[in-house]
Amino acid sequence: MSHPLFERHKPLLDQALAAIASRGYWSAFPESPSPKVYGEGAAEAGKAAFDALMNAPFPIQLPGSHGTIGAEVSPYGFALGVTYPKVDFDQLFAAIAKAEPAWRKAGPEAWIGVSLEILTRINKRSFEIAHAVMHTTGQAFVMSFQAGCPHAQDRGLEAIAYAWDELRRIPAKASWEKPQGKNEPLKMEKYYRIMPRGVALVIGCNTFPTWNGYPGMFASLATGNAVIVKPHPNAILPLAITVQIAREVLAEAGFDPNIVTLVAHADGDDTAQRLALRPEVKLIDFTGSTANGDWLEKNARQAQVYTEKAGVNQIILDSADDIKGVARNVAFSLALYTGQMCTAPQNIYIPRDGIVTAEGRLSFDQVAGALAESVRKLVGDPARAVEILGAVVNDGVAKRIDTARALGNVVLDSQALVHPQFPEATIRTPMLVKLDASDGRTYLEEWFGPIAFVIATDGTRQSLDIARRAVKNHGALTLSVYSTDSKVIEEAIAVAEDTGVALSINLTGAVFVNQSAAFSDFHGTGANPAANASLTDAAFVANRFRVVQHRMHVNS
Amino acid sequence: MSHPLFERHKPLLDQALAAIASRGYWSAFPESPSPKVYGEGAAEAGKAAFDALMNAPFPIQLPGSHGTIGAEVSPYGFALGVTYPKVDFDQLFAAIAKAEPAWRKAGPEAWIGVSLEILTRINKRSFEIAHAVMHTTGQAFVMSFQAGCPHAQDRGLEAIAYAWDELRRIPAKASWEKPQGKNEPLKMEKYYRIMPRGVALVIGCNTFPTWNGYPGMFASLATGNAVIVKPHPNAILPLAITVQIAREVLAEAGFDPNIVTLVAHADGDDTAQRLALRPEVKLIDFTGSTANGDWLEKNARQAQVYTEKAGVNQIILDSADDIKGVARNVAFSLALYTGQMCTAPQNIYIPRDGIVTAEGRLSFDQVAGALAESVRKLVGDPARAVEILGAVVNDGVAKRIDTARALGNVVLDSQALVHPQFPEATIRTPMLVKLDASDGRTYLEEWFGPIAFVIATDGTRQSLDIARRAVKNHGALTLSVYSTDSKVIEEAIAVAEDTGVALSINLTGAVFVNQSAAFSDFHGTGANPAANASLTDAAFVANRFRVVQHRMHVNS
Repeated sequence: MSHPLFERHKPLLDQALAAIASRGYWSAFPESPSPKVYGEGAAEAGKAAFDALMNAPFPIQLPGSHGTIGAEVSPYGFALGVTYPKVDFDQLFAAIAKAEPAWRKAGPEAWIGVSLEILTRINKRSFEIAHAVMHTTGQAFVMSFQAGCPHAQDRGLEAIAYAWDELRRIPAKASWEKPQGKNEPLKMEKYYRIMPRGVALVIGCNTFPTWNGYPGMFASLATGNAVIVKPHPNAILPLAITVQIAREVLAEAGFDPNIVTLVAHADGDDTAQRLALRPEVKLIDFTGSTANGDWLEKNARQAQVYTEKAGVNQIILDSADDIKGVARNVAFSLALYTGQMCTAPQNIYIPRDGIVTAEGRLSFDQVAGALAESVRKLVGDPARAVEILGAVVNDGVAKRIDTARALGNVVLDSQALVHPQFPEATIRTPMLVKLDASDGRTYLEEWFGPIAFVIATDGTRQSLDIARRAVKNHGALTLSVYSTDSKVIEEAIAVAEDTGVALSINLTGAVFVNQSAAFSDFHGTGANPAANASLTDAAFVANRFRVVQHRMHVNS
Repeated sequence: MSHPLFERHKPLLDQALAAIASRGYWSAFPESPSPKVYGEGAAEAGKAAFDALMNAPFPIQLPGSHGTIGAEVSPYGFALGVTYPKVDFDQLFAAIAKAEPAWRKAGPEAWIGVSLEILTRINKRSFEIAHAVMHTTGQAFVMSFQAGCPHAQDRGLEAIAYAWDELRRIPAKASWEKPQGKNEPLKMEKYYRIMPRGVALVIGCNTFPTWNGYPGMFASLATGNAVIVKPHPNAILPLAITVQIAREVLAEAGFDPNIVTLVAHADGDDTAQRLALRPEVKLIDFTGSTANGDWLEKNARQAQVYTEKAGVNQIILDSADDIKGVARNVAFSLALYTGQMCTAPQNIYIPRDGIVTAEGRLSFDQVAGALAESVRKLVGDPARAVEILGAVVNDGVAKRIDTARALGNVVLDSQALVHPQFPEATIRTPMLVKLDASDGRTYLEEWFGPIAFVIATDGTRQSLDIARRAVKNHGALTLSVYSTDSKVIEEAIAVAEDTGVALSINLTGAVFVNQSAAFSDFHGTGANPAANASLTDAAFVANRFRVVQHRMHVNS
């Protein structure tokens, strides 16, 4: 039952299995875009491949296609001009149904082997995909490369490893021999077949199409399901390349490529809803707004739905040895990709009578000022700043900044910068607005973008209480605490565990609360409203397949 | 972090883990009620303990109790006269909330150890519980003992083993060390805590309160959740004893006993719905009607809901070497516990032009006649028959038999027998009604009880087609095929795998399609409407807990 692609990638799989068991540091796909790693000329070839895709129909043949669609505009200020086939759903699902039986029958080793081959081929096209990520999400190039390519690929591999870790534990066959006292034992043979759930739908987001899309895509594919990828209308290209590669690998391995398909669509239509309610769709992976995620959970009841939605990430500032380190670290977290990460902090709780530091007690305003100063330094040089900030992903973010100015005392205003290479891009630096603990109506909403609130509380006890209620009622993917007091740390851990949010403690170095490392950090817990699942744990994969048995007496 | 009860039961757990890995035959709790196994006097002591419970308040203290409830009547014809505390929900949930923190904090080894201790103590009270099962479900004594005690305990242990198999793979701590080229690596410590989902609700059924109740109960308890057990109003006692034991063990281990509580209630009230919609309830395990199961799946959206509902189990008769063996085996399956098992066959498809056997071709009527004759023989001696049939669990079954007589040509009528020891009991033998393949409106519904249909089809192809559609649209827990043709067997396997139903092939000996062995047979697949989960696989346990991490730099 083994498969050549399974054998080929077995060493990689074994390393990934060891990594998810220990959850220490490990990465399969190098994050350095250096020519020493990816080869001389790889960067240039990738850029050229991306350029060749511009202003042309994307090279993919899909079932039931009629006409084209596609209006992606780079946040760096130009239209991509790429078009994609529009597909008829009935024809699409008919083609998938035709492709499914052979794929289902191929079994776990084939599913895993093909999935791993797809991932390694995706890795080879990392530079091309990085440009696609950059010009759909607005991430700066290095982030587009790292988060959009090797880190996303690692997250995909992690999902495959978890899938295999569940699949491999189900024996293909058992010999059942029940003693009957002095009589001959009852003897049966039992066979256990893994059956995928059906068609899986991956609903991509605008900001991290690959990083958030690959875990669900590969978890479903690796457990034998067919996958329809429906990208966000403004971030189609990275996933279109992904689907193209998947289809190539499937075809080369002798499978019908329609096991992985792409549904591109225009902004504002009801494609996602129509797909999600198709009776064939049994699995849905979604990243996006709370409204859309809740809609899916409520309405797509024929499917198992995995969602990552909005949340309010928080930092509790209690005390610090190294306030400059704190400020530098927080400033970078706010600036990275213009606060457009689902893990970016928004609310910073500071006692209104200040905090104790190694330099003595600092007032609330001094602490807020230190944060503002660090942000200013970080974004002071526009040429350097844009490599951290990237570009604003959509008009909503820029408008939200304008709205936020009226919310309170602006400690640090957001600046518009001009990108040296892309003067058309909208670039905004982080803003800090001072609020009071009593302004919950404002800060308990998600203000997506580079908008952070410094919130005056009666003290750390109140900060913790607010944080607890915020995670419980509004959801969060990250919580961060700064304290020199082990009791406060313990209390923050209790808040995190009770409400189900990942906690970072005293980050003052080169690790940021926004960052979630594959094979080590669980992204989301499934225990608060920000997500109903985690990337990646057993619960994320175990429901994507079923076991069906048959049994018979042994012929003796 | 280990726990003395975990250490005590580690050898048992290790055996269970080996069993779920191989899924060969294994049993932890002996099914023989012999004094050689359970000790001299154990049977008598158990009976005495049961008798002492009659006509008295059940000895259990529950939070928020006010008044009593309880109107169980044995299907063998007497009122149990046991009363249980009625509990106020707000007080109940407040008491559970008070109990939860210490239990949550205790961690996986404590949860597993306490769960295993509870199970082994339950095993010691098997005779007492067997009588409670018998006089609430109507099962005959030996079945009450076997299915209600050791087999149910094995199913509970299986769930604990799967839970531990998932829990143990999450490291408590990881050292994360990311290389930074020539610089010092980034070093972090990460801690992963298992957090239970919340309060788990187990909704018991009338026919198999322990066998169907233990998997969900122990899966939830072993993953750190508090458990509310809500038995069927006519099958409270077996679960009340179970809860009593669980509370004893919890208290002895230093935990608040309100981690496991009992909500007994009167028939026809809205207790189940009110409990199911409580925001604290995050997990629900349900066995019962399709209407109630569907209601839970649709409405209890704050919870993860695991359901086992109604279905239509089927036998495809294509050909046979040993028609007498076939008939004997099928007859026993129909008679066992008066067809009141969720796994009992209902529809028997036979080609209208008969089947080929070793004795030559037999006509449809000859095959139906052979089945009828085998049933007649099996139940010919009432004293022996009642030990197979047990008693009718409720009036609905007897009425359904009367209705079924009008559905078609009665090949074998159901007989009322008199139980030698319990003359008040309602005893009914299986009936066989002849239908045509075109009578789908009748046979595609579940006719719960000893009602089976012999259905004339155009041939095995049609039988397979009907079976496929029936499982897909109406659900099934079991499918059985008899054929000497390997092609037919292959097709039956394909039907089973495509629709997600467990298949038994050519059962002519002492294994019956109704029987599902813990550690080896998966009961339910989750892939058809009869159940959305399987007893037991990883998917049944992996969603009952979450992992919450915190991370910090290593002090170096």
